[in-house]
Amino acid sequence: MGNGTAVDLNSDVGESFGQWSLGDDDALLTLVTSANVACGFHAGDPTTLRRTCATAADRGVAVGAQVGYRDLAGFGRRFIDYDPLELADDIVYQIGALQGLAGVAGTRVRYVKPHGALYNAAVHHAGQARAVVDAVRAVDASLPILGLPGSALLAAAEDAGLTTVREAFADRAYTPEGTLVSRREPGAVLHDPAAVAERVVTLVTTGRLTAIDGTSVAVAADSVCVHGDSPGAVAMARAVREALAGAGVAVRAFA
Amino acid sequence: MGNGTAVDLNSDVGESFGQWSLGDDDALLTLVTSANVACGFHAGDPTTLRRTCATAADRGVAVGAQVGYRDLAGFGRRFIDYDPLELADDIVYQIGALQGLAGVAGTRVRYVKPHGALYNAAVHHAGQARAVVDAVRAVDASLPILGLPGSALLAAAEDAGLTTVREAFADRAYTPEGTLVSRREPGAVLHDPAAVAERVVTLVTTGRLTAIDGTSVAVAADSVCVHGDSPGAVAMARAVREALAGAGVAVRAFA
Amino acid sequence: MGNGTAVDLNSDVGESFGQWSLGDDDALLTLVTSANVACGFHAGDPTTLRRTCATAADRGVAVGAQVGYRDLAGFGRRFIDYDPLELADDIVYQIGALQGLAGVAGTRVRYVKPHGALYNAAVHHAGQARAVVDAVRAVDASLPILGLPGSALLAAAEDAGLTTVREAFADRAYTPEGTLVSRREPGAVLHDPAAVAERVVTLVTTGRLTAIDGTSVAVAADSVCVHGDSPGAVAMARAVREALAGAGVAVRAFA
Amino acid sequence: MGNGTAVDLNSDVGESFGQWSLGDDDALLTLVTSANVACGFHAGDPTTLRRTCATAADRGVAVGAQVGYRDLAGFGRRFIDYDPLELADDIVYQIGALQGLAGVAGTRVRYVKPHGALYNAAVHHAGQARAVVDAVRAVDASLPILGLPGSALLAAAEDAGLTTVREAFADRAYTPEGTLVSRREPGAVLHDPAAVAERVVTLVTTGRLTAIDGTSVAVAADSVCVHGDSPGAVAMARAVREALAGAGVAVRAFA
Repeated sequence: MGNGTAVDLNSDVGESFGQWSLGDDDALLTLVTSANVACGFHAGDPTTLRRTCATAADRGVAVGAQVGYRDLAGFGRRFIDYDPLELADDIVYQIGALQGLAGVAGTRVRYVKPHGALYNAAVHHAGQARAVVDAVRAVDASLPILGLPGSALLAAAEDAGLTTVREAFADRAYTPEGTLVSRREPGAVLHDPAAVAERVVTLVTTGRLTAIDGTSVAVAADSVCVHGDSPGAVAMARAVREALAGAGVAVRAFA
Repeated sequence: MGNGTAVDLNSDVGESFGQWSLGDDDALLTLVTSANVACGFHAGDPTTLRRTCATAADRGVAVGAQVGYRDLAGFGRRFIDYDPLELADDIVYQIGALQGLAGVAGTRVRYVKPHGALYNAAVHHAGQARAVVDAVRAVDASLPILGLPGSALLAAAEDAGLTTVREAFADRAYTPEGTLVSRREPGAVLHDPAAVAERVVTLVTTGRLTAIDGTSVAVAADSVCVHGDSPGAVAMARAVREALAGAGVAVRAFA
Repeated sequence: MGNGTAVDLNSDVGESFGQWSLGDDDALLTLVTSANVACGFHAGDPTTLRRTCATAADRGVAVGAQVGYRDLAGFGRRFIDYDPLELADDIVYQIGALQGLAGVAGTRVRYVKPHGALYNAAVHHAGQARAVVDAVRAVDASLPILGLPGSALLAAAEDAGLTTVREAFADRAYTPEGTLVSRREPGAVLHDPAAVAERVVTLVTTGRLTAIDGTSVAVAADSVCVHGDSPGAVAMARAVREALAGAGVAVRAFA
Repeated sequence: MGNGTAVDLNSDVGESFGQWSLGDDDALLTLVTSANVACGFHAGDPTTLRRTCATAADRGVAVGAQVGYRDLAGFGRRFIDYDPLELADDIVYQIGALQGLAGVAGTRVRYVKPHGALYNAAVHHAGQARAVVDAVRAVDASLPILGLPGSALLAAAEDAGLTTVREAFADRAYTPEGTLVSRREPGAVLHDPAAVAERVVTLVTTGRLTAIDGTSVAVAADSVCVHGDSPGAVAMARAVREALAGAGVAVRAFA
């Protein structure tokens, strides 16, 4: 077990804005191997983004562009019925902006992950999924896209010949079909760091998880998402990281 | 006369935003050789920016990043007392964003020109001038900076080893010292296309202009700025372009 | 015919933003009796809004609050999946802001009309329709709501005891059921001013329209919407106004 | 001492925005008697503003409109060289918006205080000071303006016949002339809650403070500003409140 087994841990960072701080990026960037850095549309002022990229670079953490809807007030968490062409342009703009700041900070953008409501839309909404793919392909077709296995996003990315990275969520319950239990359902979000950490180890070493109904389900995961927007979340990320180390699983960036 | 003489014509474009159109970019991009494309902070939504870059690319017009304050409501025309470090980061963000869109449009960013109140501030405000220079140097030290001769901006750019491009204004009156007459003074802005066109030819072929008091003054100009935000302005740009052709002056991008 | 018959004409105004102008408000405010003034979230800077209110006041035109999503880049024309409570607060904010400016301009807000994608959402989306109603009721339960007959919005407004104003569209085709033909269908938008003007007279004097399939359909209309965001649109508004006068129909604000 | 002596305590609240929280408003609103509620331009989404007004109303705290520059990214702390007419309109818009939300929350706006860089500009900048006064007078000439004694703002307000409220700062050092020591000077900001609390009691009961050079200086204060954007700040506000109670000074809103 753990013989050559490895996984990536990713987390959202760079989501402060001006006077407003969010998340303990400094702690998170000691725990994860891939940093989904906001790009200014749902969160992240340029100074925050540059500093976050610089910290990631210092610690050898891979920087990804966490692209979102243009919606600071809603933090990118409200679905917006964009024209797909305009969405693609908004995404190119965001990736380019982060590329500029990452370069200044001594690193570069190595992957793209949609944020919030765009992430959720891209699971089923073919037009928006395609917009993300078109944008990434146009900017740099070598950039992998991080997304949910089975999503329209990863399907479109594969069709377009892009590299895909399948993501699992450390603190979310799964259905027997291997999809996420809706946040509106009881038990959808897990809160116990030890239980979550053990769950991630099982997932990474066996490729299976216990679904919400108690059955075992196969879940593919090249990268596991941990959250960092609360003190408890950082503790959970730390527990996951330590449990993986204890199980002999290497934690390293996919990119 | 005109023996090998050449000059660049530049104009602000890409300043529409969403539902709001501004300027006749399509006409202007047949007349100028350098396009100061907005970067989204004072004007320019990503779709507009990509299309403007694509049109510029089609016509062989060089794309520059027209960087400005984060102030859509004020169109970047109000001085903002930025922290210089934050200003530099805002500028890196804007250049990167336009680089992304320019690349997708088949071209690339070839120079940087500050917009509006930032342009004016950078004439005298050492901190903001330096912020522009720091940003450009950090992103790509090969990018020239377009600015006013004698400005703090061009001085700082030279100190930093960057290429500078000296700009003159086709439709502005000059003092006997070779600086611009303030817009608040009578006669500061010229409106007659034929007179402006002749003035530009004289400037380019002799290196001198008639100042507002009737004396002759030396004015250096690697690039001449023409405006395009009104039908009359396009006619003036056309008159300038035709007069230069008639005088045997080549019009070509400096970049 | 025309015996005491009267109708209101409404149009969207105040949709300029900073440097960007939109629509010929000055012309429109000589033609309509109710002005749907933007409130700053989809369009309309405060100076534009105050001036628009002042012009409306000068001409005896009733001011309404044209409330929209917080989306300048999308001009309020993209559906946003707001939390209804947050939507209601955004609407209260907008109405209050316009009340402030209208008061300074010597008039007051007399009704509320949702803009763009919010208008369309409120036809079917019970949560957003209810949010508009809740906001209006909380601010001033005497303010009428302008909307589409048969919409969730007007149903919720009636349930809440608010006054409703039924709106018809001068330049839109109707289905045999009395609903609007989708803009995606051919023939959905009418362009001939004379034909549109005659159609409005028929609608107002008979309560019936010729639907897109040639049948006659009953359509209730307390107010008819004319557009003003193009020179042709102003000509159409003028044609409608003149045709109503010619038919002896009084044009006056409902409010 | 304390014989009928009373003072108002004010603090900035309502400065969260969407996903970003700032300040412990809930604690502060148990300590102060006047709440400077943000109005959405430098901070404060509408839902936050309504809730803050509701909490203030519940606790009998007077609501004031804390108006600022349109600058979320800079939190209103960067000077912006507004056209004064546009500034006045922006202020009317903000006051109106907060009036709407305050009304819905069961209270009303009782005074106006400029925020951040606008507050500082209004000390010396006649045009911006006048813009604030013009806006308040146009909206409701009975609203008092809270500002620094000796400022251009209070002078213009008095000239215009508005009520002025003189403000002192609990945690700031004063010059022998009775003005604030610049934050750039050492010792400008005081950090010890007990010392600050004693200082406020002395100020309120004697009308004098010990200046930074040790001399005694007269300082007029109808209201004392306490901060709340850090846990330490809340403790300081509590110490001030308790020390005033211990000294027999009534703490009550001026409005």
